Amino acid sequence: MKNLIVGQSGGPTAVINSSLFGVIKESMKQEEHVGRVYGMIHGIEGFLKDQYMDLGKELTPEQLQCLRTTPGAFLGSCRYKLPEDLSDPVYPKLFEKFNALNIGYFFYIGGNDSMDTVSKLSRYAESHGESTRIIGIPKTIDNDLILTDHTPGFGSAAKYVAASVAEIGIDASVYEAKSVTIIEIMGRHAGWLTAASVLARKFKEDNPVLIYLPEVPFDLDQFLKDLERSFQKRNNLIVCVSEGIHDKDGTFICEYAGEAGVDTFGHKMLTGCGKYLENYIKSHMKVKVRSVELNVNQRCSTFSQSLTDAKEAALAGSFGVCAALNGATGKMVSFVRQEGPGYDLSCDLVDVNEVCNKEKAVPLEWIVDGCDISDEFVAYALPLIQGHPVIPMKDGLPNYTYRR
Amino acid sequence: MKNLIVGQSGGPTAVINSSLFGVIKESMKQEEHVGRVYGMIHGIEGFLKDQYMDLGKELTPEQLQCLRTTPGAFLGSCRYKLPEDLSDPVYPKLFEKFNALNIGYFFYIGGNDSMDTVSKLSRYAESHGESTRIIGIPKTIDNDLILTDHTPGFGSAAKYVAASVAEIGIDASVYEAKSVTIIEIMGRHAGWLTAASVLARKFKEDNPVLIYLPEVPFDLDQFLKDLERSFQKRNNLIVCVSEGIHDKDGTFICEYAGEAGVDTFGHKMLTGCGKYLENYIKSHMKVKVRSVELNVNQRCSTFSQSLTDAKEAALAGSFGVCAALNGATGKMVSFVRQEGPGYDLSCDLVDVNEVCNKEKAVPLEWIVDGCDISDEFVAYALPLIQGHPVIPMKDGLPNYTYRR
Repeated sequence: MKNLIVGQSGGPTAVINSSLFGVIKESMKQEEHVGRVYGMIHGIEGFLKDQYMDLGKELTPEQLQCLRTTPGAFLGSCRYKLPEDLSDPVYPKLFEKFNALNIGYFFYIGGNDSMDTVSKLSRYAESHGESTRIIGIPKTIDNDLILTDHTPGFGSAAKYVAASVAEIGIDASVYEAKSVTIIEIMGRHAGWLTAASVLARKFKEDNPVLIYLPEVPFDLDQFLKDLERSFQKRNNLIVCVSEGIHDKDGTFICEYAGEAGVDTFGHKMLTGCGKYLENYIKSHMKVKVRSVELNVNQRCSTFSQSLTDAKEAALAGSFGVCAALNGATGKMVSFVRQEGPGYDLSCDLVDVNEVCNKEKAVPLEWIVDGCDISDEFVAYALPLIQGHPVIPMKDGLPNYTYRR
Repeated sequence: MKNLIVGQSGGPTAVINSSLFGVIKESMKQEEHVGRVYGMIHGIEGFLKDQYMDLGKELTPEQLQCLRTTPGAFLGSCRYKLPEDLSDPVYPKLFEKFNALNIGYFFYIGGNDSMDTVSKLSRYAESHGESTRIIGIPKTIDNDLILTDHTPGFGSAAKYVAASVAEIGIDASVYEAKSVTIIEIMGRHAGWLTAASVLARKFKEDNPVLIYLPEVPFDLDQFLKDLERSFQKRNNLIVCVSEGIHDKDGTFICEYAGEAGVDTFGHKMLTGCGKYLENYIKSHMKVKVRSVELNVNQRCSTFSQSLTDAKEAALAGSFGVCAALNGATGKMVSFVRQEGPGYDLSCDLVDVNEVCNKEKAVPLEWIVDGCDISDEFVAYALPLIQGHPVIPMKDGLPNYTYRR
């Protein structure tokens, strides 16, 4: 009987540990087919340094239960890119370690870059006669993976964004004086999470009045006109912008303000388009202006976890285990929304090579006049934020499972 | 039978509407002694422009119930300072309006500046034979009012801070590389809310490893030494700082970065000490640095409302109504913690003239080595964040009561 190993990679989400829970729980259920359940510490990068743990032995039932509502990545994460060249010595080194632990199944819970790892390892395994089955479990708050209706992690982040934007809107509306509050939301190239701010709107002309996604070029002159038009309808304006909004030449608005760094994958590291717009408005309009960067809480808030998202994340994990046991490899678990009046979701498998290094943008037809979001998006996103999990509490705060 | 009017003033909190709920509910209970229940729209400033509503008539039972968990200030707020000179014509103008509505009781829910309003109006009433009884209901996330154990609004904000700091700590610890995350927390002169970040600590040497309050001068050289010492124990450091930290000469750290404005009360408007420290560390240490400003969500988050805080806020409102009916005026409702092993709280009244324009700082003996918080503070603050209210939900988000 083969053993199983699971790792987490990329940025954490509120429910990436729900997927881990799903993998562990399903493996326990399949005890006749799965031996030990190992966890890589800090993903592939840590595993190459022999960092792993025996999840079946080291987690108490209570810890396993609390894992469901623990944000972050319990196993630790990494941003480690495998070389393009499959003849690189890191590949045989990795499989040597897999074989030493008698690993038959490897699950990598992650986003775009993690699916790249799944793709490379499964291609290497196929061409070198390695039998380890390799499956990707999707997770990303960005919702930018293709060939899946949505990604685990998006629903909870969307719920955080919608709830926070509603609350900031309420907070900003207590004074009569004209004001603009810019809310900067995560999303480098895809505006899904920023679009979710529209869910905060309770009636026509409610906040957020303006929503800008990176899918459409941003223009400062048009922005001022949009604000002036909005002030004719209400005094307190909430404006939601993706961190990655850029002008028609592709220059990020945050770059107007100064320099931008580059992360280990070569992505531009963005901060501050909200701050830049705050200062821009201050110098062009006589109104009170504030900017709020929702920041990392978007991806790690327990209190605003969506029960639907948490359940689907666990489902993706358990479905992946079953698929691997049935012989699948080189696949990513995907979500398929069934046609019909209600919300009905099921899992499927897609070729991971088709998924990795591609990004799914918000359809342009869901973006209205460059500054608003259509009802089609609301119909798409609303089911994903439903339900509130029971959060195990201790001393007034969520009781998390820590790895120490 | 006299009528009653209630107003809200100053910055919103997560439970200022719970106090409003308490005032309305108690007034309904006392229907034999209280006539109509009016609400000032935008506090004294709006009332002077005849903006008010009939709360007894215009709120449905469902709206009244949802008010308990609606953040912001349902009635709208203001930052309006009454003149020091009690012979100013604004005073007779106000009381004329009170008398036209047959107001016998006025409740002002607010912080320090609002208690200044209560003080002035009650002194004017006393010296001019006006019979309106005037009571202050405390609220401030800053917890800086004297003569009360704590203030409504602090517990929920403290719970938000503790939960968010714990989550950001989890998020920051997923990677192995050395990192510092600066979390900037509200608090101009008093560090109560920043001190609450210690509640996120689950074991010795857990994050947040360093906590800096405005009660103690901040020194950049010492800060670097504190960081270096902390790196000997763990790789991912969470550092919590009050927005109002300043050096030994009284210069705010955020002022090192640039200019600072002034609000309508003449307070310095602060932003960015977190951002400044982020850049400072980047130029002095080779580690990953990030800064997070918790921002307005600290004072308006529904999901992290403390049930204890919400109940106490409502209690302060109802106690105020009873006190006024019993003849009290020129008082602020205060909280008294009973001696004993458990947490037992009751309300009392204090002279509002003693409270206003004074600030309660965190006791210096609760601040350890200038960068940590003692167990005495934990014992003080922990009871205030207990309990989770049932939040009425609609379409996956809290169902708020809006005034439209």
